[in-house]
Amino acid sequence: MSEVTKPARGMRDFLPDDVRRRAYVIGVVAEVYERYGFEPLETPAVENIETLLGKYGEEGNRLIFKILKRGEHERTGEADLALRYDLTVPLARVVAEHRNRLPRFFKRYQIQPVWRADRPARGRFREFYQCDVDAIGSTSPVVEAEVCAAVSEVLERLGFDDFVIRLNHREVLRGLLEASGVPGALHDTALVAIDKLDKIGVDGVRAELAARGIDAGAAARTLDAFAKPSSPSNAYWLGTLESRVAGHAAGLQGLETLRAILSLSASTPAGPRLQIDPSLARGLSYYTGAIFEIAVPDLAGSLGGGGRYDGLVGMFSGEQVPACGFSLGLERILVVMGERGMFPASLPTTGADVLATIWNADTAGDTLALARLLRSGGLRVEVYPEADKLGKQMKYAASRGIPFAVIVGDDERAAGTVMVKDLRSGTQQPVPRNETAGWIRDRLAHAPTPTA
Amino acid sequence: MSEVTKPARGMRDFLPDDVRRRAYVIGVVAEVYERYGFEPLETPAVENIETLLGKYGEEGNRLIFKILKRGEHERTGEADLALRYDLTVPLARVVAEHRNRLPRFFKRYQIQPVWRADRPARGRFREFYQCDVDAIGSTSPVVEAEVCAAVSEVLERLGFDDFVIRLNHREVLRGLLEASGVPGALHDTALVAIDKLDKIGVDGVRAELAARGIDAGAAARTLDAFAKPSSPSNAYWLGTLESRVAGHAAGLQGLETLRAILSLSASTPAGPRLQIDPSLARGLSYYTGAIFEIAVPDLAGSLGGGGRYDGLVGMFSGEQVPACGFSLGLERILVVMGERGMFPASLPTTGADVLATIWNADTAGDTLALARLLRSGGLRVEVYPEADKLGKQMKYAASRGIPFAVIVGDDERAAGTVMVKDLRSGTQQPVPRNETAGWIRDRLAHAPTPTA
Repeated sequence: MSEVTKPARGMRDFLPDDVRRRAYVIGVVAEVYERYGFEPLETPAVENIETLLGKYGEEGNRLIFKILKRGEHERTGEADLALRYDLTVPLARVVAEHRNRLPRFFKRYQIQPVWRADRPARGRFREFYQCDVDAIGSTSPVVEAEVCAAVSEVLERLGFDDFVIRLNHREVLRGLLEASGVPGALHDTALVAIDKLDKIGVDGVRAELAARGIDAGAAARTLDAFAKPSSPSNAYWLGTLESRVAGHAAGLQGLETLRAILSLSASTPAGPRLQIDPSLARGLSYYTGAIFEIAVPDLAGSLGGGGRYDGLVGMFSGEQVPACGFSLGLERILVVMGERGMFPASLPTTGADVLATIWNADTAGDTLALARLLRSGGLRVEVYPEADKLGKQMKYAASRGIPFAVIVGDDERAAGTVMVKDLRSGTQQPVPRNETAGWIRDRLAHAPTPTA
Repeated sequence: MSEVTKPARGMRDFLPDDVRRRAYVIGVVAEVYERYGFEPLETPAVENIETLLGKYGEEGNRLIFKILKRGEHERTGEADLALRYDLTVPLARVVAEHRNRLPRFFKRYQIQPVWRADRPARGRFREFYQCDVDAIGSTSPVVEAEVCAAVSEVLERLGFDDFVIRLNHREVLRGLLEASGVPGALHDTALVAIDKLDKIGVDGVRAELAARGIDAGAAARTLDAFAKPSSPSNAYWLGTLESRVAGHAAGLQGLETLRAILSLSASTPAGPRLQIDPSLARGLSYYTGAIFEIAVPDLAGSLGGGGRYDGLVGMFSGEQVPACGFSLGLERILVVMGERGMFPASLPTTGADVLATIWNADTAGDTLALARLLRSGGLRVEVYPEADKLGKQMKYAASRGIPFAVIVGDDERAAGTVMVKDLRSGTQQPVPRNETAGWIRDRLAHAPTPTA
């Protein structure tokens, strides 16, 4: 009995209250995503290792959990499988595999865990859920507008009223870099440095750009492009950026796309949330167009992010298939909601509405029959399993926060009634047996529905 | 582009229709389990390897997926983590870890995937879901009655009307073995052979008992105890077994427990389902008391099984904590429901109720505004993302099985109406813009609800 009882490092057990909060958020996310016409997809937790390697950059390769080959190969130390690292690469694989079974415009959502062997920290876990929406098959900025609207509506429905969606475009960034004198071959490495602006500040990025071989003048011009007045409007940035990327055709087209996304979003929930931020870079290498990231004042990281990645499906199928999506981080949303006390009071805090007590060992079968009656009346009923003294059973119900207890003693049995005790008020009263479920239901804070 | 696009061997991608069917079944299971007072628990997919090894017997150890240590240790081939093999061992670990945060009677349900490196076959996958209910903390047969009632109600709610719950008791089996002359040291190995009776028949088990060192006379007496008249009643078995295990105190107590379970279950959904079967053995080694298994005529394997395991938590905590549970196999349930056509017709077969078309590129923003209006009216709306010809957009809606399309042309815009096309009948009619959501909702087969 020297067994370890902790979960694995960086992973968590979710006790009932945790699961109820998680299920509440997931339920809102799924419902909103479905309203937007996204359909559910699920992929295996485990992928062939070659599906994942080489898709996320060097850090990704290192942080992927790798699974040993089975049987006699176990001894060789060879890994042939790996745990899912995000939901986007599996989606690209699925699209390549099932293209002919999927609609021309495939809009899917996926809410599943991913695993990364990262160093655990506050709000950073080795198993965590992503809530992704992606639309496959169109290059139209309507897609960007729709995914931004969907995540905005999710966050508003959850009670967030102070988030912004930072918006940028990879080609605008490249145009800025080119205009600043950063050679094309150094764009990718420059983006990695710029991505850290929030974390390490202007001086930090300047040092990192230097370390990555970008000369001081080009670095200064790049950073100068991000300098801004207080509360710059989207119109300000569109004007400023247009003059800066003037000579860069793809950059100008990127600006056109940003303009279209803003215009299309005007009458959607994303309209008031979108804020152009020319320094937004996003870490992942597969983005090719518009990129987004959600910020709230009281969280250093983001609640989610996304963008357009028109090349990823082609890495599997050879056929270029345009794609764009947004991913919400469930754990971060839960952290902020917990700190701000945003969970609805109607979430159950206990597993039962009613404790069905046992009068004595001989009548336990009747307790089960009464429990059946109350359950078919829509109530969640826990049966006390042992013929303990009634006081002990009541104490148990109170300690569990169960609001009602039902007792059928000899008098109630003779009268065809049930004694219903309200443990919140301490009062009790007899109720005709067949009316008990409705009587209790009317007095519950939440509203259970009877089964058909 | 030589990428493999298949999922890993023995694992599956679930496209939208698959997910909807799975979510329907999981929803029914969770709702019924909650009515029975079980609370949700979730544990990580990954466990420390020592948590799992040695809990399932030799075959289990072999079939566990093992995860390589990270970083420089990756090269050593050492595994320190493993994928969850069932939901019972993680529950026992959680109970040992969180005992002081959990109620005295902890009733939890858990619906999550598990992974086994088994040889894939029809209905046997390497990633599959289990739907477990377990009650911790009581030795009362009320617990057995409750878990049997809960799974019976699940199956009835899903439309199963021909299942039986085979019921036996490990101590009755041991009593039979003892009475038949099988030495105590060979009981465990004999149970492994008896567990195969359904698969390999009486002659097969006789041969296997011999191979496991049990003498022919003892084997014959054991098998004779399983011989039965056609449709033996529970009363028949209780009588027969009582005389056979007469000298074995624990076996007689086991019979008492079976009698109590049957009596307590009389007025529960499990009542008419429970059938004593003295040859039921169950494969897993951790069972200590009553054992159950669900059979339907058209499936060779079982839909689920369970039993009492009073020693497992103690392997983690040192403290003996009684426990009993039942596990339903989601994939088997889905296979049978699919073959029998048991899914409700009301399950959506497409991701949208309405296609919002784009009249021309200039009015795409208005299409998004209309989509927002319809979504807040409770409809699932897909926006066609491109300004294609209207005929092409309609064809797309029809090919997707989307029942309605909405069009706002110049006339409708001027009149404040929306042209609603019913793609099932081919008819169309103008509807005032603000009444469109309700108008469509009234004509849908399923009943969406407007958001608050």
